[in-house]
Amino acid sequence: MDNHNISRHISGQFNAELEAIRTHVLAMGGLVERQLTDALRAMHNQDVDLARHVIREDHKVNGMEVAIDEACTRIIAKRQPTASDLRLVMAIIKTITDLERIGDVADSIAKMALDNSSYSQQPFLVSLEALGQRAAKMLHDVLDAFARMDIDAAMKVYRKDDSLDREYEGILRQLMTYMMEDPRSIPNVLKVMWSARAIERVGDRCQNICEYIIYFVKGKDVRHIQKEELEKLLK
Amino acid sequence: MDNHNISRHISGQFNAELEAIRTHVLAMGGLVERQLTDALRAMHNQDVDLARHVIREDHKVNGMEVAIDEACTRIIAKRQPTASDLRLVMAIIKTITDLERIGDVADSIAKMALDNSSYSQQPFLVSLEALGQRAAKMLHDVLDAFARMDIDAAMKVYRKDDSLDREYEGILRQLMTYMMEDPRSIPNVLKVMWSARAIERVGDRCQNICEYIIYFVKGKDVRHIQKEELEKLLK
Repeated sequence: MDNHNISRHISGQFNAELEAIRTHVLAMGGLVERQLTDALRAMHNQDVDLARHVIREDHKVNGMEVAIDEACTRIIAKRQPTASDLRLVMAIIKTITDLERIGDVADSIAKMALDNSSYSQQPFLVSLEALGQRAAKMLHDVLDAFARMDIDAAMKVYRKDDSLDREYEGILRQLMTYMMEDPRSIPNVLKVMWSARAIERVGDRCQNICEYIIYFVKGKDVRHIQKEELEKLLK
Repeated sequence: MDNHNISRHISGQFNAELEAIRTHVLAMGGLVERQLTDALRAMHNQDVDLARHVIREDHKVNGMEVAIDEACTRIIAKRQPTASDLRLVMAIIKTITDLERIGDVADSIAKMALDNSSYSQQPFLVSLEALGQRAAKMLHDVLDAFARMDIDAAMKVYRKDDSLDREYEGILRQLMTYMMEDPRSIPNVLKVMWSARAIERVGDRCQNICEYIIYFVKGKDVRHIQKEELEKLLK
């Protein structure tokens, strides 16, 4: 009886520790989402103070990645999780890498917002902001799916990446035409192009997080399989 | 005495399993290195067959990432590693993510090599190949450092990224000037530019692997710290 109580107690503590890590990941996700939308707003409104704020906050994202990674390693060493508990820890370790990289995208957009020369490209910043909002929505939704470990919600996000890619291709074509018409604009337009590409990659990172959610729930690693196969697998 | 033997036996098996994973990582690294140098050679020699071969082989890199990840999760669940054993597993889980992404770079360079239009940019492909060879050397050296878990060798690679970055910046400027002088070349030059950027990122990924080596040996997470701090730390 005592033994049983102790093991319940241990498992209760273990669950509390796992739950604390999960909460920490969601907090990190919230911060990254805020960083991304703030960076987009700073760019759109040419708000230098907000851009500087985003750049200053980036170290917090990095610090959270390191702290969560440490907590994951500690829980593995101390609690020796197996099965779905271990899958959760693994999914978290991978998720925070992608979140940190999205944080880097926010940081680089904020740096572009500080660079006055880019404002001569104002018409393009509007399409860039629309692209960014779409990526930020994907991030918001995938964090929701992660909070509930909801495969259906994750798949909805997963499917949205196609339209983000199409919008990105459209912007690229637009930017290329502009450069060809006005070659002096090339250095500045290129900056917009790098940012567009970085935002397009946010969509890919959200898709990665969807794959970790599926890995946790289904116990199956679905990276590197075709979208059609994935859809069949989850039916 | 029996107990002691059993525990030696278990630990012997555990070591064999860990060693098998480590060997698998080195094999993956070898394949990725070959993919990268083959892709560069295919681009340089306009060798369509070799380019197709690289593209066909990419699934092997992906398969190895998934298999090693599974083996790591299995060893954690079964053997409950702690201390430096656990750090090795963690370092491996992170290393293979970076290796897989370098594999993607090889794949995308091979795809560019298949795209005949890029050959009108022949003079730039020479600088691109030099940049690529420099990145491939970094990859080769960091895999060597990983095989021996040698911090000094890792730091040598780490420091090399600066010169890769400078060479990349030089190529960018060259490409930009070319585009401004001949705007019709823009779509093709942009393809070269994307590849140059992808190669520059290979250097960053090699730096990441250096950080995992330091993490394993020193037990300290050195991501997100300045290079100067890192040098001081390792003195």
